[in-house]
Amino acid sequence: MIKGKQSIAFKASPYIEESASVVGKKEGEGPLGSRFDMVGLDDMFGEDTWEKAESSMQKEACQLALGKAHLTAGAIRYLFGGDLLRQGVATSLGVEQLQIPMFGLYGACSTSGEALALASMCVAAGYGERMLVVTSSHFGSAEKEFRFPLSYANQRPLSAQWTVTGSGAFIVGKNRSHVRITGVTVGKIVDYGLKDSQNMGACMAPAACDTIIQNLEDFERKEEDYDRIITGDLGYVGQSILFDLMREKEYDIKERHMDCGMTIFDQSRQDTHAGGSGCGCAAATLSAYILPAIASGEWKRVLFVPTGALMSTVSYNEGASVPGIAHGIVLEHC
Amino acid sequence: MIKGKQSIAFKASPYIEESASVVGKKEGEGPLGSRFDMVGLDDMFGEDTWEKAESSMQKEACQLALGKAHLTAGAIRYLFGGDLLRQGVATSLGVEQLQIPMFGLYGACSTSGEALALASMCVAAGYGERMLVVTSSHFGSAEKEFRFPLSYANQRPLSAQWTVTGSGAFIVGKNRSHVRITGVTVGKIVDYGLKDSQNMGACMAPAACDTIIQNLEDFERKEEDYDRIITGDLGYVGQSILFDLMREKEYDIKERHMDCGMTIFDQSRQDTHAGGSGCGCAAATLSAYILPAIASGEWKRVLFVPTGALMSTVSYNEGASVPGIAHGIVLEHC
Repeated sequence: MIKGKQSIAFKASPYIEESASVVGKKEGEGPLGSRFDMVGLDDMFGEDTWEKAESSMQKEACQLALGKAHLTAGAIRYLFGGDLLRQGVATSLGVEQLQIPMFGLYGACSTSGEALALASMCVAAGYGERMLVVTSSHFGSAEKEFRFPLSYANQRPLSAQWTVTGSGAFIVGKNRSHVRITGVTVGKIVDYGLKDSQNMGACMAPAACDTIIQNLEDFERKEEDYDRIITGDLGYVGQSILFDLMREKEYDIKERHMDCGMTIFDQSRQDTHAGGSGCGCAAATLSAYILPAIASGEWKRVLFVPTGALMSTVSYNEGASVPGIAHGIVLEHC
Repeated sequence: MIKGKQSIAFKASPYIEESASVVGKKEGEGPLGSRFDMVGLDDMFGEDTWEKAESSMQKEACQLALGKAHLTAGAIRYLFGGDLLRQGVATSLGVEQLQIPMFGLYGACSTSGEALALASMCVAAGYGERMLVVTSSHFGSAEKEFRFPLSYANQRPLSAQWTVTGSGAFIVGKNRSHVRITGVTVGKIVDYGLKDSQNMGACMAPAACDTIIQNLEDFERKEEDYDRIITGDLGYVGQSILFDLMREKEYDIKERHMDCGMTIFDQSRQDTHAGGSGCGCAAATLSAYILPAIASGEWKRVLFVPTGALMSTVSYNEGASVPGIAHGIVLEHC
């Protein structure tokens, strides 16, 4: 069960039984646009504030996933959810109506990995037939939370990332599907002392490197044992740093690396600078693009590594550094 | 293993092997003052901001618990931690140096219950020998986060609670001690539509009622099967609402109820209005007061129910209600 220093290998691996993705207008116009389950016509989802819109996306994603699995909320034992907003209110107010006993999580943009890890650990341990995982982010609410309200029309440096307006929901359970979670690697906080909240990719790359190498060591695997190693939202800047850091440790993942933040937007025509980011970026991409490729057998084994930058406006203004964290989820075709 | 609708009963119950508490000056002057492991001379703990002071408390609490157990951080498999600040930075920056793989949590003041639940679930499932749980709150950082910076000298209504400056850390593992976690009841979000962030007790009481009754139903127990039913921080206002709500459902817990927020301060001489609150309130009281009473056999079985109010300044300002959540932890003498 326990594997190496930080990992767990499941004896009876849980399945991702079903999933759903909900995204905003810009994400719908991106390369993955036609693959999402729901694309908003605007980014308000029928609400009057960005925060409520984000909650609405979470609720929709959960209900879509439940609907696709022909289940009601009562069939779910526990919910694991989180978002980027202070005190995780997008989740609290988003999942409230479902009335599922819940664990609120915070791992910045790594939250989808944290939630999938805990949900699969709970199913494998026999703590319930099925768990629900949901995470989200919203460009409007995140810019207001971390940088400047959109109406200030603030300029963004090229190293900045574009927070994805989106949510992904996943039903993790014992019922056979074509994707299993066979193992997890829980991440440590990694701090290289960087302080630039407009360059999150650089802040998160060391954590991604740490978790990927730990996963390979714990499971005694090589890079080529994975068809893809997929980070959450390092973006273009973070990816090149990740490659450099991995090379220093004599690992090379260039050929098999994919980053959700680089996949969800088209940098050349969408003005998204260093790429997409946010709790919703990795989650929506996993549901819409990665899981179908694993389910079809195109990819047999994938290491999914959502990455998070741990900071708040208060810690940033007080001069604290921005450490990163990343959790690894091993997904296999079956 | 699964018990009723929301609970888990452990076959091999994990132990709380060791714990530690660190509190501020005011808490040290309260009724439990002499019982805490460490009392700060001021509330800054050697740091220059309230946020860093809170991180410092968390680090001290973890290191004290490890020291009392004669363990190094390397002996801990996973850490479960959280606090009240936006994006949980007190925890991220507090536990960073320990370099333990971690799960960041957010359940407002219920976080100590959420963390103890997940840690005991992981130990019972065989995911590691030992887990570390830590939560904190700080009066200065919390007032700034949720209400007004202290230097505004804002007046507080009598229904307001006083956020405890404190942290509690717990080592949950397989090694025998005199306190076991024999079961958990994971809470749902309960929303009575209240919107007053200066009356958290009223916002949280319905959730406490829901979780306590669910625990009694799931485990097929009566009130008298517990020597104490201990809520986190309902305070004086919340307690009387809890009693009323329980009575409506034909339960009476008056004789055996204790609230950490009413125990940690002396209302008559400490000007703390409706009582203490915060992630650190229930955690520090558990470590300093509740666990010793269970370990000594004075109390054989206790239901520990930390309670949280789910809100942020943004959700509050946008007119959202303040729902509550509460998690139940069954602690038994052995």
